[in-house]
Amino acid sequence: MKKVSDSTVARLSMYLRLLTELQAEGVTTLASEELARRCGTSAAQVRKDLSFFGTFGKRGRGYAVDELVTELRRIMGLGRRWKVALVGAGKIGAALLAYQDFRRQGFDIVAVFDRDESKVGREWNGLMVQADAEMDASLRKGIDIAIVAVPADAAQAVVDRIVAAGVRAILNFAPTKLTVPDHVTMKTVNMALELETLSYALVNEARGGRTVSSRPAASRRVVDG
Amino acid sequence: MKKVSDSTVARLSMYLRLLTELQAEGVTTLASEELARRCGTSAAQVRKDLSFFGTFGKRGRGYAVDELVTELRRIMGLGRRWKVALVGAGKIGAALLAYQDFRRQGFDIVAVFDRDESKVGREWNGLMVQADAEMDASLRKGIDIAIVAVPADAAQAVVDRIVAAGVRAILNFAPTKLTVPDHVTMKTVNMALELETLSYALVNEARGGRTVSSRPAASRRVVDG
Repeated sequence: MKKVSDSTVARLSMYLRLLTELQAEGVTTLASEELARRCGTSAAQVRKDLSFFGTFGKRGRGYAVDELVTELRRIMGLGRRWKVALVGAGKIGAALLAYQDFRRQGFDIVAVFDRDESKVGREWNGLMVQADAEMDASLRKGIDIAIVAVPADAAQAVVDRIVAAGVRAILNFAPTKLTVPDHVTMKTVNMALELETLSYALVNEARGGRTVSSRPAASRRVVDG
Repeated sequence: MKKVSDSTVARLSMYLRLLTELQAEGVTTLASEELARRCGTSAAQVRKDLSFFGTFGKRGRGYAVDELVTELRRIMGLGRRWKVALVGAGKIGAALLAYQDFRRQGFDIVAVFDRDESKVGREWNGLMVQADAEMDASLRKGIDIAIVAVPADAAQAVVDRIVAAGVRAILNFAPTKLTVPDHVTMKTVNMALELETLSYALVNEARGGRTVSSRPAASRRVVDG
């Protein structure tokens, strides 16, 4: 199997989401052109993305929706359930626990840790908060994915312990640069960065700098610097 | 000014975060090599990223930290405060309101809307929840950025109303494909996708497929498909 880029994985995820919706609506076959159109890409891109994983669909007859959903779920690792541990029993963690898509997609948050002694031993969003000192041993008990939702200055030390416990996949919410060994996959969700990208676009569009606008913003107030 | 890529903007944000930390520690000058090393990039990349915006630093003397922080904050649109509206008074919104970096970086969540009548008129995380029907008029009162934290099936209609109200920057948390006109900048935070990228890596590494591992995973249990 060739190395597959993150952007291909993101498109596969999008194809799967759309196909699952169509499946629920009773659609049984779909042309690659139609899949591409609905996902804002080209039919050639769809075929290329899928070609990494085998041969799907019959020329002129499109994709069998049920079959492609099953295959995409297998490819994306969604054919099984994953045990997820949450480090940090705060509001980010609470939002994740409330996010029903996680469980629907096979991600079960089964443990939560916090170093705040007043939280330890208490029920929190349906889980019992475990002490920081218990984390290392608990992570070794079959945890697949760890979510880091601790302050930036504590994050690297937490990540190092997660890696030492043998967990190979980390979702990080701490707004800081963290390092992991090559055999560990880490994704960082940096919401401050997302907002900064928006403020950057607002400022630089208002100055007539970056061409994010395809039509004049004459009717809008000028953003002060 | 040339068109600047999202990855450049992301690096500028990282430089700014690091320089702000160093500034707090009393560091006054920094070589581009050191800035690059700490951010995991090359000195040539640092110089190229900054060159879009002018001339910074003196050859052989490095960057003046105070000056570069000020300039980067101006470039990123952080020299002012932005008015942010939140659509959807749920747990994602509550997590964002608790996220202190937002306010620190100049993003003030000043309004929240929900279509659940039982929430409307009530105090929620320091804000008064406004009715869905009030949203369009309220957004026109100087809102710079809208955060969409509503279910997927309601998101496009909400986005269309935000755009119609003249808001040009949207941060979307709904896990669905949304479209906006070219003059609007939208960033989507798709946490299900982040987790799927992790499960994809776990499955495909375990199969010996994708080379995300630099050392054998022999000591680990095999992931069942």
